[in-house]
Amino acid sequence: MYKKVLVANRGEIAVRIIRALHELNIKAVAIYSTADKEALHVQLADEAIGVGGPKPQDSYLNRQNIVSAALLTGAEAVHPGYGFLSENAMFVNMLHDVGIDFIGPRAETIDLMGDKAAARETMRAAGIPVIPGSIGTLATSQEAAEISAEIGYPVMLKAAAGGGGKGMRFIPDATTLVEQFDRAQAEAVRAFGSGEMYVEKVMTDVRHIEVQIMRDASGQTVYFPERDCSIQRNHQKMIEMSPAVGITSDIRENLGQLAVKAANALNYVNTGTFEFLADRDNHFYFMEMNTRIQVEHPVTEAVTGLDLVKMQILVAAGEPLPVAQQDIQVKQHAVEVRLNAENPHKNFQPSAGQISFSYLPFGGPGVRFDSAIYTGEEIAPYYDSMIGKVIVSANSRDEVFTKLSRTLDEVVIHGIDTNLSIQRDLVHNQAVQQGIIPIDFVETTFLPAWSVEEIQEP
Amino acid sequence: MYKKVLVANRGEIAVRIIRALHELNIKAVAIYSTADKEALHVQLADEAIGVGGPKPQDSYLNRQNIVSAALLTGAEAVHPGYGFLSENAMFVNMLHDVGIDFIGPRAETIDLMGDKAAARETMRAAGIPVIPGSIGTLATSQEAAEISAEIGYPVMLKAAAGGGGKGMRFIPDATTLVEQFDRAQAEAVRAFGSGEMYVEKVMTDVRHIEVQIMRDASGQTVYFPERDCSIQRNHQKMIEMSPAVGITSDIRENLGQLAVKAANALNYVNTGTFEFLADRDNHFYFMEMNTRIQVEHPVTEAVTGLDLVKMQILVAAGEPLPVAQQDIQVKQHAVEVRLNAENPHKNFQPSAGQISFSYLPFGGPGVRFDSAIYTGEEIAPYYDSMIGKVIVSANSRDEVFTKLSRTLDEVVIHGIDTNLSIQRDLVHNQAVQQGIIPIDFVETTFLPAWSVEEIQEP
Repeated sequence: MYKKVLVANRGEIAVRIIRALHELNIKAVAIYSTADKEALHVQLADEAIGVGGPKPQDSYLNRQNIVSAALLTGAEAVHPGYGFLSENAMFVNMLHDVGIDFIGPRAETIDLMGDKAAARETMRAAGIPVIPGSIGTLATSQEAAEISAEIGYPVMLKAAAGGGGKGMRFIPDATTLVEQFDRAQAEAVRAFGSGEMYVEKVMTDVRHIEVQIMRDASGQTVYFPERDCSIQRNHQKMIEMSPAVGITSDIRENLGQLAVKAANALNYVNTGTFEFLADRDNHFYFMEMNTRIQVEHPVTEAVTGLDLVKMQILVAAGEPLPVAQQDIQVKQHAVEVRLNAENPHKNFQPSAGQISFSYLPFGGPGVRFDSAIYTGEEIAPYYDSMIGKVIVSANSRDEVFTKLSRTLDEVVIHGIDTNLSIQRDLVHNQAVQQGIIPIDFVETTFLPAWSVEEIQEP
Repeated sequence: MYKKVLVANRGEIAVRIIRALHELNIKAVAIYSTADKEALHVQLADEAIGVGGPKPQDSYLNRQNIVSAALLTGAEAVHPGYGFLSENAMFVNMLHDVGIDFIGPRAETIDLMGDKAAARETMRAAGIPVIPGSIGTLATSQEAAEISAEIGYPVMLKAAAGGGGKGMRFIPDATTLVEQFDRAQAEAVRAFGSGEMYVEKVMTDVRHIEVQIMRDASGQTVYFPERDCSIQRNHQKMIEMSPAVGITSDIRENLGQLAVKAANALNYVNTGTFEFLADRDNHFYFMEMNTRIQVEHPVTEAVTGLDLVKMQILVAAGEPLPVAQQDIQVKQHAVEVRLNAENPHKNFQPSAGQISFSYLPFGGPGVRFDSAIYTGEEIAPYYDSMIGKVIVSANSRDEVFTKLSRTLDEVVIHGIDTNLSIQRDLVHNQAVQQGIIPIDFVETTFLPAWSVEEIQEP
């Protein structure tokens, strides 16, 4: 087993990983930007090394400095967390070249799944249903028009190498397609150096259901109970839950087997999550794969009683999976609420500043609060606005929601703006509690009414 | 269901109960002594009412003031927590007289189980094995000598109305019995107004195993998985765990059925815990019953995923038990460590003062920290020294101990003395981890070696 691992991240996930390392009796090396010298992850680690200035590209995205830090400190492996360099194949190759393990999949897999069109084709070829759309990539608007007519409008036109919405267009009809294709393609070339495009049908009244898998070096694979992450705004998940309402154990098993088949087709190593759209009849359509631990992994830990980060580390070190499929049971219901430093009343504008006071209600049964914030901490403006995750579990979904509501009522954070108000209202919302929520619910149904309500307040 | 409940307690258990009330949509009334004006339980309650000076007898034991507070605030029921008035039949009767429910058993049951000799006889009559000893009470040393010769020395001579060690004597042989009987009896008369005595065999190489039950007004009864509370000092539990090592599911079921039989014999209402001594062959001998929620209840909550305090409130309000026996499963392993404000290097002398800094490691999977302390709080010298409970759960006992060790390593409390050092060492102790520990282990095996070790440090 490793003796020392570098954690190439910050915030709550860095703290989470450091704790898992300590529980495996492994020394943890933290990295930090000049803005994070006093951060909790630095204080909990066994050693810490500065890797650059406050801007992400200078520090947490600075591949060369992080590889140097790993070499300097004698780390045998790097855990990337999520975000930053967690899905960066070049970083994985650089580590590999100097003999340091990456706690995650192989660089080729990251590359393959990072190319959204290639991921789609690979999954289709492996027999995984994908969102109706083009097969392979499209060179011309005419090809795009043919396939769009076949699957029916509206469609999304996307860049194969895409990300961050660049080169992406919502296409309601054939005329718009012709108008937009060249422009979107040019944008893709500028952003990614590749003009390869594809189209997918825009599915409505669908949920975001995802399945996480873990696969060891010998090819043993397990899947975990599904998570419903349909409560989103601007493609950002806000609330995640497991098990999903309406997913029977038969459906769960079939979906899990599908994910295992997909993982085998990729000869995948370590953990990853297959994201699907699910219609009302629980037909699942592959969207994309996240080749890293996700923000919402604690939901699954609360449901199953397992420690997924520890498992990642064991598997990366060449250990066999510590659990068999039959050991993975739905033991509890769980919901996670993300707390962000942002103002939902000002178009979710990020907020920075000093946390002048906080009360974080961490006691009682079934409440977990993963965060790296503390009273007195300076929230810097350079990083993701997520400052904590409240994860609540209980024996029934109803009990989870009453407990979640009580917990969120107790949270006090002064000195910065947070999204507590909207999250409290979402948790109290009847549709959310009932649990079958289409992915556009927050933006098209909840937010318009919520904003009006807020304005009407005295 | 109740609309408002008064919580007749302080500290972590008051906070725990207030949270359960809020999750049931019930208003919580806190009471406080003049020393507790700024306490967390006061801040979390919907209203709070002062009941007297800092000394327990003036406030948290002041029956008249607490009943008045309940009447004044319109509370329909009182939750007593543990300690203070939780096993005080007169308090229950006073509440009953003014039409306020007591969240606990009937006054008669509290009285019966409070008389240790009567409890013993009641259990024996119900077919529950008790510790070998006298049948009924003993009037003379001659009667005591006869029965002691029969069961074999050493024996404990105890006052039937006893508590706090008063009137209690360790008796190694017949000569000592004759010498001590009259003196112990006189002490019992002075302390309790009753000279009724009984003897019990001193059992060695035994564990403290307890079974909690919950019984509703209609007589439906469930039992929960056993807890092993053998790690004790001075009759105070230090670390509690569940499930107990070496207890198979068959033994668990038999022991549970025994507890259900005992509860039925008492026509018990609400929750209570039967405490047994268990020998190496898992024969169980009834010691006593606690007719209230216990400090260590979170261990069982972590193991089963249930909320025992909520269940108490539902049952007190006349609701049927919300779970059936088959819903109560061992889903996790769990261990609780009590943090006390006391100095283990100075004979566990209690410590008071201001908490100048604290870091409480509440994040990550399977960690619960129940406490009412906060940075800046003044720990008063008037109350029990327990300031918090760390409860850790995971899928295996081994994993619980590594996680517990990591968690305790992260705890920082400045400004007062705590028992963290001894608890950390107990958690690292091989015998403790292995798990079959006789009840005298801490005092006769661990502490003598630990003290020497401490002195040898530079």
